[in-house]
Amino acid sequence: MRTIKLILEYDGTDFHGFQRQRCLRTVQGVLEERFSRLLGEEIRVAGAGRTDAGVHALGQVVSFRTTRPIGLDRLARVLNAALPGDVKVQACEEVDGTFHPRRCARSRTYRYTVVEREMPSPVVGRFALVLPGPLDVAAMSGAARPLLGRHDFAAFQAAGSETATTERTLMRLDCARAGSRIEVTAEADSFLYHMVRLLAGGLIRVGRGELRPEALVGALETRQRLPKCLPAPACGLCLVTVSY
Amino acid sequence: MRTIKLILEYDGTDFHGFQRQRCLRTVQGVLEERFSRLLGEEIRVAGAGRTDAGVHALGQVVSFRTTRPIGLDRLARVLNAALPGDVKVQACEEVDGTFHPRRCARSRTYRYTVVEREMPSPVVGRFALVLPGPLDVAAMSGAARPLLGRHDFAAFQAAGSETATTERTLMRLDCARAGSRIEVTAEADSFLYHMVRLLAGGLIRVGRGELRPEALVGALETRQRLPKCLPAPACGLCLVTVSY
Repeated sequence: MRTIKLILEYDGTDFHGFQRQRCLRTVQGVLEERFSRLLGEEIRVAGAGRTDAGVHALGQVVSFRTTRPIGLDRLARVLNAALPGDVKVQACEEVDGTFHPRRCARSRTYRYTVVEREMPSPVVGRFALVLPGPLDVAAMSGAARPLLGRHDFAAFQAAGSETATTERTLMRLDCARAGSRIEVTAEADSFLYHMVRLLAGGLIRVGRGELRPEALVGALETRQRLPKCLPAPACGLCLVTVSY
Repeated sequence: MRTIKLILEYDGTDFHGFQRQRCLRTVQGVLEERFSRLLGEEIRVAGAGRTDAGVHALGQVVSFRTTRPIGLDRLARVLNAALPGDVKVQACEEVDGTFHPRRCARSRTYRYTVVEREMPSPVVGRFALVLPGPLDVAAMSGAARPLLGRHDFAAFQAAGSETATTERTLMRLDCARAGSRIEVTAEADSFLYHMVRLLAGGLIRVGRGELRPEALVGALETRQRLPKCLPAPACGLCLVTVSY
């Protein structure tokens, strides 16, 4: 039995998230269905990050086990030929049978993209949140800095989620502008449910002057959700890379 | 009766081109249907360029006539609220009744985007042609230069098209690289059917070393289609701007 690790890129727009769900089109569901048919055996796929509906990926990592002795060069090609246009393999390698894409991951890096535009944009808006600007990126960076390090991020978790602990280590939370494009890059050991989108939503409100920069670290300390702070829309979020 | 000029952005992926067709989803068809319903009168839309199925636009220009006295500020907003996510108004103004977006246009600028990548890319590939590189952009520029000016572009026209003349003035045909992204920008008084995609297809073959740079100007002179030169795929093409 071989264990195959894949790096995947997908346009999340038409997927109901990564995780398999009955009767809904999901990344995991499509991979398992197409790979099982292609390889003639039941394939189960494990993923590094359970991206939500509408969230994109440039570097999602998945693994699966197969008995088929297909060479790695050919494997990426035949898997891609079996996949629809909105999810494609970028790299494939054979790994040790103990490898698990979620449990072995050291960190995940997500990027949230905002583009300042007066009008809604069909081209830009597929992979970014389009907002009338301008955002104050210096204020956003100031609000982000005290969140770095190991903290209890309970304030940045979707209501009703259940996890053993809400402590996480945030290694990176950068806000950078290039023209009208603002990118928030977040890296952590792992993220709570909706954590990146709640952080991005809070930072965007700081950038728009609707929230004081200190409000985010205040929420962290009190472990209370920021009032009226919704997760930023899924279309702007992308899982960029998973490190092992 | 007022004449309204709109600048439109659209993601062409799910449209069967600009021009209205029975039973197919087209940009013109969607605009006429939605605007007629919204304004409560039959709206006919004229466009500057008949983009093909799958071709995008950042600056398509259209016009229509209406009796409704809606203020321009509000008009862009209500038109956008009536439109689907893949086509949106970017600007709107009231113009003289003699304005016609196609007949009054002085030039059109299209951009063809190629991205060098080994693997198919769902994110990049929506608005670009993804190819394993590298392309020789200097050779492409060399092949493009002698095509500038007024020429008979019969060699760069889809078979079976009918036009009064195949002479056109090409004011710009630039090939530029930024990292792995290569952009071919073409501006002309007007373009023959498939002309930009046939030019881009020829230039890409030059960039890949499959065609000598002189072959394009040779085709121009003999008015013969380049052998095995298909129009470059629609997904990489975008109507950027129309000048008046």
